[in-house]
Amino acid sequence: MIVEIIAVGTELLIGQIINSNVAHIGRRLADEGFDAHFQVTVGDNLERLSGAITTALGRADAVILTGGVGPTQDDLTREAICHATGRGMRRDEGHARRIHERIMARRGVVADSALRMADYPDGSDPLPNTQGVALGVALRHGGKWICAVPGVPREMMAMVDLEVMPRLRTAAGKAAVIKSRVLHTWGYGESQVAEILDDLYEATNPSIAFLISDMEVKVRITAKADDDASVDALIAPIEAEVRRRLGGVVFATDDETILDVIGTALGGRTVGVCEVATDGLVSHRLSAVGGFAGGTVLPAGDDAEALADRAMAAFGADIGVGVSGAVVVDDTGEQASEITFAIAGPSGSQSSTMRFFGTGERARSYAVIAALHVLRKALW
Amino acid sequence: MIVEIIAVGTELLIGQIINSNVAHIGRRLADEGFDAHFQVTVGDNLERLSGAITTALGRADAVILTGGVGPTQDDLTREAICHATGRGMRRDEGHARRIHERIMARRGVVADSALRMADYPDGSDPLPNTQGVALGVALRHGGKWICAVPGVPREMMAMVDLEVMPRLRTAAGKAAVIKSRVLHTWGYGESQVAEILDDLYEATNPSIAFLISDMEVKVRITAKADDDASVDALIAPIEAEVRRRLGGVVFATDDETILDVIGTALGGRTVGVCEVATDGLVSHRLSAVGGFAGGTVLPAGDDAEALADRAMAAFGADIGVGVSGAVVVDDTGEQASEITFAIAGPSGSQSSTMRFFGTGERARSYAVIAALHVLRKALW
Repeated sequence: MIVEIIAVGTELLIGQIINSNVAHIGRRLADEGFDAHFQVTVGDNLERLSGAITTALGRADAVILTGGVGPTQDDLTREAICHATGRGMRRDEGHARRIHERIMARRGVVADSALRMADYPDGSDPLPNTQGVALGVALRHGGKWICAVPGVPREMMAMVDLEVMPRLRTAAGKAAVIKSRVLHTWGYGESQVAEILDDLYEATNPSIAFLISDMEVKVRITAKADDDASVDALIAPIEAEVRRRLGGVVFATDDETILDVIGTALGGRTVGVCEVATDGLVSHRLSAVGGFAGGTVLPAGDDAEALADRAMAAFGADIGVGVSGAVVVDDTGEQASEITFAIAGPSGSQSSTMRFFGTGERARSYAVIAALHVLRKALW
Repeated sequence: MIVEIIAVGTELLIGQIINSNVAHIGRRLADEGFDAHFQVTVGDNLERLSGAITTALGRADAVILTGGVGPTQDDLTREAICHATGRGMRRDEGHARRIHERIMARRGVVADSALRMADYPDGSDPLPNTQGVALGVALRHGGKWICAVPGVPREMMAMVDLEVMPRLRTAAGKAAVIKSRVLHTWGYGESQVAEILDDLYEATNPSIAFLISDMEVKVRITAKADDDASVDALIAPIEAEVRRRLGGVVFATDDETILDVIGTALGGRTVGVCEVATDGLVSHRLSAVGGFAGGTVLPAGDDAEALADRAMAAFGADIGVGVSGAVVVDDTGEQASEITFAIAGPSGSQSSTMRFFGTGERARSYAVIAALHVLRKALW
């Protein structure tokens, strides 16, 4: 099933904002096996927008429009759908009343145009907006689907997930429920993880995919079935097998972050930092953890163990983190960052050294993440 | 003159990368007064890409393609231009030789496909790539322009500025040279700056525009003329007038940053930080300045003047920066961040307090920028 995305808004054409909405929708569609041939961006112009819808209906099975459903005269998506499909407009009077009450309570005056957010093309489903006011649209027309969602990313994402994807899945004869479990790993490279899980990639339900982000390799297990319990039953054995093979490199699940894990592992203990070569970013990241006692940022300094001891002493912390760095030349003659991490506690200290390619921002970002993981492992 | 942008690449359709290239090109075009009606994204498919070019030629005066000019079989932009315009392909033999030598020196082996980066449609100008290897394309066809640039942002930006924009300007009968001067301000809100400069906005050459980014209000003065000297002569008096009206709120020019300004103002002096409520970000930002002596990050603490003194003492710094914060409730009953900044030096200390709306990341980011500006002003 081919789905075309149309992004609506002159501010996109003139580059005032970057079009991250189509990337989000494109990724969601690709994840679930829909095909994409074109994405089109069009300004706030009725004729061109209506023409873009007609063109998309001629070459795709479904069209998702994002943007142009707000209250102003520039918001023309609803009108363009009516224009392209030869339909009239209806108003959801109950929703119009709620809009009126809501705006009246806040501002004491309601412009007529605000009520346009309760309008929808004749014969379409007005889509509820859990994150905002403007309704979306889902219209079955000539055997194809036309869906319209807001351009505000938060509203768009919720409406795509809750309203648009289920309709497209049903239209494509796909399973009703799709769920993913994400396992966050740190310590193996992408190719190592790929090798360890090699034979598991052949399966299609659950399917396994990699995501690389925030300098972690994530393993995503996705299953499809007719109900929640069946999906969970499909995911569980594969998740257990992936965890068994990857062992301790899996450190978090789904939305959990390295900072959540450190916070839990600290229990009631406090942690202090003394860092060189990471420019305050280890202190910055750890300051979001409940047990953060304080950090010192130095332009140059001692060995990492002395820094860890200093961090404990300076902030009266139960655990001290020391980070020191040096620029070295690696085997290929390129500059590299050699970073030493030390963790000090009541029962002594431990340290480890890692090399990161280059000496720039990227090397430093890797070193900051590495420092958090060295701390996490020491807390286990 | 209407210009249509076509972004090429399946990775864009499936949302693997966000399409920031079209925003960049769209902004450059809008800045210079070109019109945009559509932007289209199409995958690595010869027929659909060729069709998109034909469609664009039917409704725009110029088409800029970005992406698909690399060496792999997936890179189809050159072929699609030939296909859409009925032209053959030529090879820049000199460039092919350079590609061969360059890759041979690095890898010892050269795939034939790499030499495709020296190909260009018959009758087009092969565009030099100052940032990479693949040539671009500029083709005059049927009274319209077709330009192709790489998808790698650095290569794309340079080629758009150096090769594409001058051709489009000439085609549109626009002035040959366009230059901007950007004055960075901090201290007035956007509407205040707008009011102070109100009457200057009516002029069109130079024109004046606002940019809000990095929590600064920037004033951009843009002039067009036939040569560099004439452009400079147009900008100079307006720049002087804007500086006269805005006075000390102008702190930097063009690419200069607040950190550059602080570095210069420090001279040989050193600066230390002790911060509460800004989570290490003041230390992080200042660690990029030559005179950074060290920073302390605390989860809670003293008044700002004591923190500034502590920063001087802890790091033996000439100047100490102290930042402390409290959550307060403002007049409308909303939570706000009240941040106090203190600067200590050999001749005593000074402090100031500001309020930022909310208590989240945005309030903290404003407070970090404010801290840098409080330091800058104290150094003057």
